[in-house]
Amino acid sequence: MKLGFIGLGNMGLPMAKNLLAAGHEVTVWNRSPAKAEPLREKGARVAGTPAEAARGAEVVFTMLADDRAVEAAVFGSDGLHAGLGKGAVHVSSSTISVALSERLTQAHASAGQGYVSAPVFGRPDAADAKQLWVVAAGAKADVERSRPLLEAVGRGLTVLGEKASAANVVKLSGNFLIASMMEALGEAFALTRKSGVEAKVFMEVFQSVFARGPIFERYAQLIADEKYSPAGFPMRLGLKDVGLVLEAARGAQVPMPLGSLLHDQYLGGVAQGHGDLDWSALGALVAERAGLKRGS
Amino acid sequence: MKLGFIGLGNMGLPMAKNLLAAGHEVTVWNRSPAKAEPLREKGARVAGTPAEAARGAEVVFTMLADDRAVEAAVFGSDGLHAGLGKGAVHVSSSTISVALSERLTQAHASAGQGYVSAPVFGRPDAADAKQLWVVAAGAKADVERSRPLLEAVGRGLTVLGEKASAANVVKLSGNFLIASMMEALGEAFALTRKSGVEAKVFMEVFQSVFARGPIFERYAQLIADEKYSPAGFPMRLGLKDVGLVLEAARGAQVPMPLGSLLHDQYLGGVAQGHGDLDWSALGALVAERAGLKRGS
Amino acid sequence: MKLGFIGLGNMGLPMAKNLLAAGHEVTVWNRSPAKAEPLREKGARVAGTPAEAARGAEVVFTMLADDRAVEAAVFGSDGLHAGLGKGAVHVSSSTISVALSERLTQAHASAGQGYVSAPVFGRPDAADAKQLWVVAAGAKADVERSRPLLEAVGRGLTVLGEKASAANVVKLSGNFLIASMMEALGEAFALTRKSGVEAKVFMEVFQSVFARGPIFERYAQLIADEKYSPAGFPMRLGLKDVGLVLEAARGAQVPMPLGSLLHDQYLGGVAQGHGDLDWSALGALVAERAGLKRGS
Amino acid sequence: MKLGFIGLGNMGLPMAKNLLAAGHEVTVWNRSPAKAEPLREKGARVAGTPAEAARGAEVVFTMLADDRAVEAAVFGSDGLHAGLGKGAVHVSSSTISVALSERLTQAHASAGQGYVSAPVFGRPDAADAKQLWVVAAGAKADVERSRPLLEAVGRGLTVLGEKASAANVVKLSGNFLIASMMEALGEAFALTRKSGVEAKVFMEVFQSVFARGPIFERYAQLIADEKYSPAGFPMRLGLKDVGLVLEAARGAQVPMPLGSLLHDQYLGGVAQGHGDLDWSALGALVAERAGLKRGS
Repeated sequence: MKLGFIGLGNMGLPMAKNLLAAGHEVTVWNRSPAKAEPLREKGARVAGTPAEAARGAEVVFTMLADDRAVEAAVFGSDGLHAGLGKGAVHVSSSTISVALSERLTQAHASAGQGYVSAPVFGRPDAADAKQLWVVAAGAKADVERSRPLLEAVGRGLTVLGEKASAANVVKLSGNFLIASMMEALGEAFALTRKSGVEAKVFMEVFQSVFARGPIFERYAQLIADEKYSPAGFPMRLGLKDVGLVLEAARGAQVPMPLGSLLHDQYLGGVAQGHGDLDWSALGALVAERAGLKRGS
Repeated sequence: MKLGFIGLGNMGLPMAKNLLAAGHEVTVWNRSPAKAEPLREKGARVAGTPAEAARGAEVVFTMLADDRAVEAAVFGSDGLHAGLGKGAVHVSSSTISVALSERLTQAHASAGQGYVSAPVFGRPDAADAKQLWVVAAGAKADVERSRPLLEAVGRGLTVLGEKASAANVVKLSGNFLIASMMEALGEAFALTRKSGVEAKVFMEVFQSVFARGPIFERYAQLIADEKYSPAGFPMRLGLKDVGLVLEAARGAQVPMPLGSLLHDQYLGGVAQGHGDLDWSALGALVAERAGLKRGS
Repeated sequence: MKLGFIGLGNMGLPMAKNLLAAGHEVTVWNRSPAKAEPLREKGARVAGTPAEAARGAEVVFTMLADDRAVEAAVFGSDGLHAGLGKGAVHVSSSTISVALSERLTQAHASAGQGYVSAPVFGRPDAADAKQLWVVAAGAKADVERSRPLLEAVGRGLTVLGEKASAANVVKLSGNFLIASMMEALGEAFALTRKSGVEAKVFMEVFQSVFARGPIFERYAQLIADEKYSPAGFPMRLGLKDVGLVLEAARGAQVPMPLGSLLHDQYLGGVAQGHGDLDWSALGALVAERAGLKRGS
Repeated sequence: MKLGFIGLGNMGLPMAKNLLAAGHEVTVWNRSPAKAEPLREKGARVAGTPAEAARGAEVVFTMLADDRAVEAAVFGSDGLHAGLGKGAVHVSSSTISVALSERLTQAHASAGQGYVSAPVFGRPDAADAKQLWVVAAGAKADVERSRPLLEAVGRGLTVLGEKASAANVVKLSGNFLIASMMEALGEAFALTRKSGVEAKVFMEVFQSVFARGPIFERYAQLIADEKYSPAGFPMRLGLKDVGLVLEAARGAQVPMPLGSLLHDQYLGGVAQGHGDLDWSALGALVAERAGLKRGS
């Protein structure tokens, strides 16, 4: 296929390389052109502007740092939007805002162009090794047309539906899960270190019990299914245990704001009469506060 | 070995069964005696009081619901403490407070008895299948003497050192990690659902990207090693992404208190000049606030 | 009246002085006896133990640093509990836990002694100037008997009812309000300072608009009356304004965790359909999560 | 003076009325023109567009609902920006974002127009009674020219400096203080109600001790002066008291997220070695996290 690829940073470069390796005809563009040289050697054409990279292409990828960079490359003078032909598709893989993704959806639609939001999970080494996981959303025909390309840059693909910005929400939610786990780990390591447990020993427990086990997956399934009853472990015992965590934290002088948040959630859940639901019903408390109905 | 086992609930019953199956001579006690019958059929002796279960045993386990139940069984009249011989060891596997674990350490030491704190990770089905993970701490000789028993109830064992209550902190920290992940998942599911992504689809992403992958483990290792530089992904980009999460949450009307907590952490980190550290340096911010020094 | 007074720290000393000045016969005790000398000169008798200070007195005050000090002075050997006569009343003015206040209630009742919990608001200079505000609770007869004494140490008295520990909850809640205001002020000063407003200028605004005005009182009244409709200023505008605060905070790089908390509260309130209630209906959101019914 | 006034809602109408009463020549505009009639009767001229209201005026006020309304009235076709003469001044009293205030600063400067940001504190009844408090910022000459007008709508005025958007930050910070106090009160009322204290009784305490007293003002002064030592009441006792609040909250089953936030702040402060500073040093902890230096 005839492709454009805009943005050759740590992530874009290996992705473009894998598209070339899959036999596609790729025209690349990068703000600092030196980055394009390794791809020229592998057979890529190098464009002088994003518009030029888009001209004549069936699909054009963007993989850029943030909203500002995407806006410049798409809507700037000689931008992608100006160069992309009718019926051609813009595949946006950058981690951008929901608002910009919605603006792109409309701008491309108005111009008779397709738009697929397709952010990726994985670090540069995963991009290089074709091990990214792609989440894609957009009009069905556009997603299907991009599918072989999305499969060429990663190890798997989840298609989320026709609303392009949903893919951005999912990508952002994934980064949110990582940051949450890091805060949780930060607090747990601080508490255990101040209680006399070496970090490498707690790390061993984390690996043995959590990182490679099915625990998080099981609880995620309960929340996905909103299956909070019968309780495997009831919320009132969850409250008791988090209470003991905070007592230990007070004793060791370790502020644990995430621990405090959990305690207030469980205390509210029990005060409102949900103490016999499974402790994963944190998911229900959060959903209720967001105005979500069960099963919606 | 001659053993006592006190507490035959969902967890204690299968653990005692596995000790019997490993060839040990086990005397059991439970507040409601009916629970003991299945074990009597398998060869266990049934005691009338905790003291009786402890008398003559080399090692006595307790596996009870909470601090109150442990205090009653150990320090009550005809309690374990009264029955346990000099040199014999109490192995406490219940999820109890650090304070009670320290009290048990002292009380047993004063009586010339040994004490090992050995809580377990895993649900009743894991206990039944000998798939628990045990974390144990206490005087070296006592831990070594209990080791074959701890190995007989689970798939693995981490020994944490000589301070018994450290094992309780680790167990509580593990439950804290689970609850944290559930809060994070609850917020992420609420955001994605309100943004039009079906729960089962986000669940698929969670499974593919997080639950079975090495992501959490890698970040845990960075925090364990306090290796925040060079940054794989710098904190200022973490701030940007969490900012985008909160914008999406505002747009979808989903309160995300954990998201807000992360945002304030990153904003503080960047304001204090740490924007170029890896975003896992959340661990450093937490540690600093706890008064911990690097590498301690 | 014949009185005992136990605890002559920064607060106790001026309170005892005012009781002497009101014409009562006061026997004092303090752990370090030197503190008692100024009162001896003013006519006080100095006891060697708390029990001695209590013996023969109609009412005995305690004003001590914390739970531990009160427990020692009341239940220790030669403690107040041992010396206090049947029918005499212990007035506890220390800031202690609800749990200890409940224990004191029972212990005195069992011994045929009265107990009034009467913590005070005000700093040492207010105590000296008889400007404390007293909140008292306990059996009616005991409170009435103590009333002239409570009036002799302060400028006013609120009687809360028969449940003594309620006075401790009220005192703690007052300190909570002060700490809350300090956190709010801390965040507001940080934001305004980083936005180029000198602290003394923002202080002038605080004085002119808030500290001496009826604003806080008016809002407190709305929450006390649960009168959230019709809205003077609706919650959805509150959400908008707090959203603007957080935008400003992000721009100035000032973490405002209390701002984030407020934002999540308002976002949840609006998501749950309460956007047209007055923005003081934060009170309703908090009450609901505590399982309180309207008007209870 | 010849004035324009744009926006005749609950706040704008009485402000315009007071400017008329002060003898100024006022041309008003409102989106729905019926609102202008009462002022026409009092001598105001009614314009057909914001531009018309601005034409020929020395100063034009805007008092509108939010950013969107201000943007429309100023930058829309026939907007204020088009009608305002060179050297004339736009006084913006709406509660708007810092970002919009900065955009207005630039747009007016480019057109040779003046801009003063002058939001007000007070409800419609205060506006009617000329009891608003105004905070104003902008170029000195523009502020001085507007001063008699700002004094004509309120009881007092604080001039913040030359950076117009600082006034918006101060207004938003004021609303933040109110919302903070409401959250604090909401939590305190929930705790006391569940502990058996009637709301009207706690309200009496709030009035007697806090609302009409100098407590909040004193603590604000300590934070404004960064005078955290010597401690009137040290942070470690603050930690103790907030700890007792949370114990009471747990006992009464009242989630107090602001209480938890305070506890984590104090715990961190003590862990970092600041336990002997005054408990108002919450202000120092917040400032440090914002990257502020002492005295800056």
